[in-house]
Amino acid sequence: MKIYGDSKSGNCLKVKWTADLVGRSHSWIEIDIMAGESRTPEFLAMNPAGQVPVVVLEDGRPLAQSNAIILHIAEGSALIPADPYDRARMLEWMFWEQYSHEPYVAVARFQVKYLGKAVAELEPRVVERGKAALQRLEDGLADSTFLVGDHLTLADVALVAYTRKAHEGGFNLADWPRVQAWVAQVEQALGIAEPVAA
Amino acid sequence: MKIYGDSKSGNCLKVKWTADLVGRSHSWIEIDIMAGESRTPEFLAMNPAGQVPVVVLEDGRPLAQSNAIILHIAEGSALIPADPYDRARMLEWMFWEQYSHEPYVAVARFQVKYLGKAVAELEPRVVERGKAALQRLEDGLADSTFLVGDHLTLADVALVAYTRKAHEGGFNLADWPRVQAWVAQVEQALGIAEPVAA
Repeated sequence: MKIYGDSKSGNCLKVKWTADLVGRSHSWIEIDIMAGESRTPEFLAMNPAGQVPVVVLEDGRPLAQSNAIILHIAEGSALIPADPYDRARMLEWMFWEQYSHEPYVAVARFQVKYLGKAVAELEPRVVERGKAALQRLEDGLADSTFLVGDHLTLADVALVAYTRKAHEGGFNLADWPRVQAWVAQVEQALGIAEPVAA
Repeated sequence: MKIYGDSKSGNCLKVKWTADLVGRSHSWIEIDIMAGESRTPEFLAMNPAGQVPVVVLEDGRPLAQSNAIILHIAEGSALIPADPYDRARMLEWMFWEQYSHEPYVAVARFQVKYLGKAVAELEPRVVERGKAALQRLEDGLADSTFLVGDHLTLADVALVAYTRKAHEGGFNLADWPRVQAWVAQVEQALGIAEPVAA
């Protein structure tokens, strides 16, 4: 499988992490979105929406949308709960991630880290909704180690992608201690924990 | 099953249509979001995100996020393709709907129809991205009657919800003729076609 992704993008890294977890062999083709590489005719032929990530499966067929991709490649693995209700809760978190978390937490980070905006210049709505999303996660972790039950699922993979970088958009994860502990645990499970700064 | 929904909301109607299609017995509890009914303590106990729709299953457990709900209640039905790649393409459309279609097509309609904004006063970004979403649908319908293959799937259910009301946000569906024909066909399949105005 080929993954066309920008390594600055948590949405793209989700796909790599999931492929690694399930042992799906893949190559990574770096697409620099800021250089317009997701808008070339070749790229648009794979994904007319012009968004990364895109995967091209072994049989040559393309697939887009990070969460649709990870659901596809993790099918039949323990990353997707067998219980129908748990699976539905996992999907609930994944759709919520794309609608109520990524557009604020990831967008704040993108504007600060990659467009050079000051945190104080962020749109108040983005900051407010980003905080609400982190609080929602904090509440969701009140009774369990992972988002759905006591195992790592795709809900954790999807939501950790930008939550672990939230500080780069001006959010202080120390304000949400359960989220902070969960990030560390999910990073450990994914083998992507970074050395703690002294 | 109980559906807590606002009948102004396409996201809520999706759930009702899917329940009707699969013959799942349900009652509808109207939640007026503009009157704050999705922010009461009772409602937040069901869905801490404060969003409609929410369903309460027969065993009393709640579930939120329209697309997660319809995936759950349609499980095992023909609305979800058996082929893994087709299923993945359906999910691709459904995640794209929440990220790249609803925030523009539905938001424009909400601001015009329910907040009384003039179409000319809409944020240009909302109009531009709404048009791009409708064009993406038009392109996606070039080779097939429905979004995934030649059968109705949850991708059609999810995407028709706000596309059929796009004119209420100032979009003229006549500009996207394949979309217009597809809306009519999906409405027919859902039994929600409205009489054509004279």
